[in-house]
Amino acid sequence: MGINNFDLKRYISEKKVKIEEFINSYFNPSITPPILHESVLYSLTAGGKRLRPILCISSYEACGGKEDITAYATAIEFIHTYSLIHDDLPAMDNDDLRRGKPTNHKVFGEAIAILAGDGLLTEAFRILSNPKYADVKPINLLRVISEISYSAGLYGMVGGQAYDLISEGKEPNKEVVEFIHLNKTAKLISASVKSGAILADANDEQIKRIETYGLSIGLAFQIVDDILDIEGTTEQLGKPKGSDEKKGKMTYPRVYGIENSREKAKELIDHALKAIEIFDQKAEPLREIAKYIVKRSS
Amino acid sequence: MGINNFDLKRYISEKKVKIEEFINSYFNPSITPPILHESVLYSLTAGGKRLRPILCISSYEACGGKEDITAYATAIEFIHTYSLIHDDLPAMDNDDLRRGKPTNHKVFGEAIAILAGDGLLTEAFRILSNPKYADVKPINLLRVISEISYSAGLYGMVGGQAYDLISEGKEPNKEVVEFIHLNKTAKLISASVKSGAILADANDEQIKRIETYGLSIGLAFQIVDDILDIEGTTEQLGKPKGSDEKKGKMTYPRVYGIENSREKAKELIDHALKAIEIFDQKAEPLREIAKYIVKRSS
Repeated sequence: MGINNFDLKRYISEKKVKIEEFINSYFNPSITPPILHESVLYSLTAGGKRLRPILCISSYEACGGKEDITAYATAIEFIHTYSLIHDDLPAMDNDDLRRGKPTNHKVFGEAIAILAGDGLLTEAFRILSNPKYADVKPINLLRVISEISYSAGLYGMVGGQAYDLISEGKEPNKEVVEFIHLNKTAKLISASVKSGAILADANDEQIKRIETYGLSIGLAFQIVDDILDIEGTTEQLGKPKGSDEKKGKMTYPRVYGIENSREKAKELIDHALKAIEIFDQKAEPLREIAKYIVKRSS
Repeated sequence: MGINNFDLKRYISEKKVKIEEFINSYFNPSITPPILHESVLYSLTAGGKRLRPILCISSYEACGGKEDITAYATAIEFIHTYSLIHDDLPAMDNDDLRRGKPTNHKVFGEAIAILAGDGLLTEAFRILSNPKYADVKPINLLRVISEISYSAGLYGMVGGQAYDLISEGKEPNKEVVEFIHLNKTAKLISASVKSGAILADANDEQIKRIETYGLSIGLAFQIVDDILDIEGTTEQLGKPKGSDEKKGKMTYPRVYGIENSREKAKELIDHALKAIEIFDQKAEPLREIAKYIVKRSS
């Protein structure tokens, strides 16, 4: 199945360098006031895995794209970062630590944290609407904005986060945990790969399969996250484990138990791999990332 | 100067009907969870003036546009509404009343208010990226998204709001109040008219003049708001007057005095009217709206 000597670690680290270069060059001229600038960069450079932008680029390349779409891919990281800043707020999940560092509002105060999140979300669409970053069709940029705003908005991530909050402490429920994970996590991950495919001008069949891949790995990713919150080390998590349970969060392990959750994650990854069978070896990064996601939990 | 019998009140009320029809039809299917749906509609239908979308449509028509662009114009109202919800939060301006009604977080709680704002901002870009709403060029939709995200983002409204917050209680300062008003208010108002012109496929000279008009009336609008906070009635304001002073906000009257501020607003409106002299009678609504803005304060 493809290149046997594909080096995922090296691949990821090369993409990360370009993503971080873009982040560091984007805010020029500096944002005023300086505290807002610091707040935005603090969270953007806090050591994220860059999973979503890397997936976007991998999908673009799997579909034959030849341009450097780092800017557009990184816009998705802006959206992911905004969502973390807002999720951590006292009124939301009230978390003090993220990736082993104090959360944004702990350092810059709640007002600046809210505004940093608002600003990152808005700048993401500014990047996506600028055709200068790569030679892609304007109509495809519109489709990408449509896809990402759907997945991140009231019918996606924001809805999922709201349901997550109002479900705290409620009885475990299959439909509810499915809704939350699909909306809060899987849709934006799916939009990341779908956007890559759209930018590569992929055909409908390819886009459909990439979307199935994305939803499956997205759901698997969140299930693995739920498992890690129970079994992971503080070092792995960047914060003390057990925080989901403490908050009475609706998680897969709570509904299905740990072993069944692990099984479910594996099935989802198999489903994802099957969906992208039709792609050639250029899809090797997508395959290896899928396998890596489920490996994190075992 | 144009149609003498132009009826501004009737014009505004006709546009408002269409804007509110769009709002009421947009969230179908319902947002899940229901409390998020209620929260979003609560603020969107709280009786705003709809100044920004009306300006967008008026500018589009002034530039010869013939399509119904209510959807795209209303996307700007979504952004304005999100900014009000977030500005009212306890961590920000901590306001309990808005347009005579309890603010969003007072009714739905802080978490849902933050998410309703996030969701409205995101949906705005979803509307703007959908070419189905009117026969406009896709590349012009991209330009509009670029314009609006610049004006609403870290280099516009969000930056202005951050500067506004950190300037509370500080010594009156001309440069600071200019920066805040330009970024917090004028840029999005200018983006509203500029977007209308872009959608009408106006030429560069027309767009430039419309932008000057927008920045001038936008600044005048905020100066008048500052004056009303001192001189207005509770009924006019929808909240008790004097709240700027109580918070030590950086306002025009604090820096220049009330009479000079009133004079400055009038000069700005004259400047705006001069900028759009080249347009024919289709620009009459833009002219009347400009005059109306300054009339509010006298």
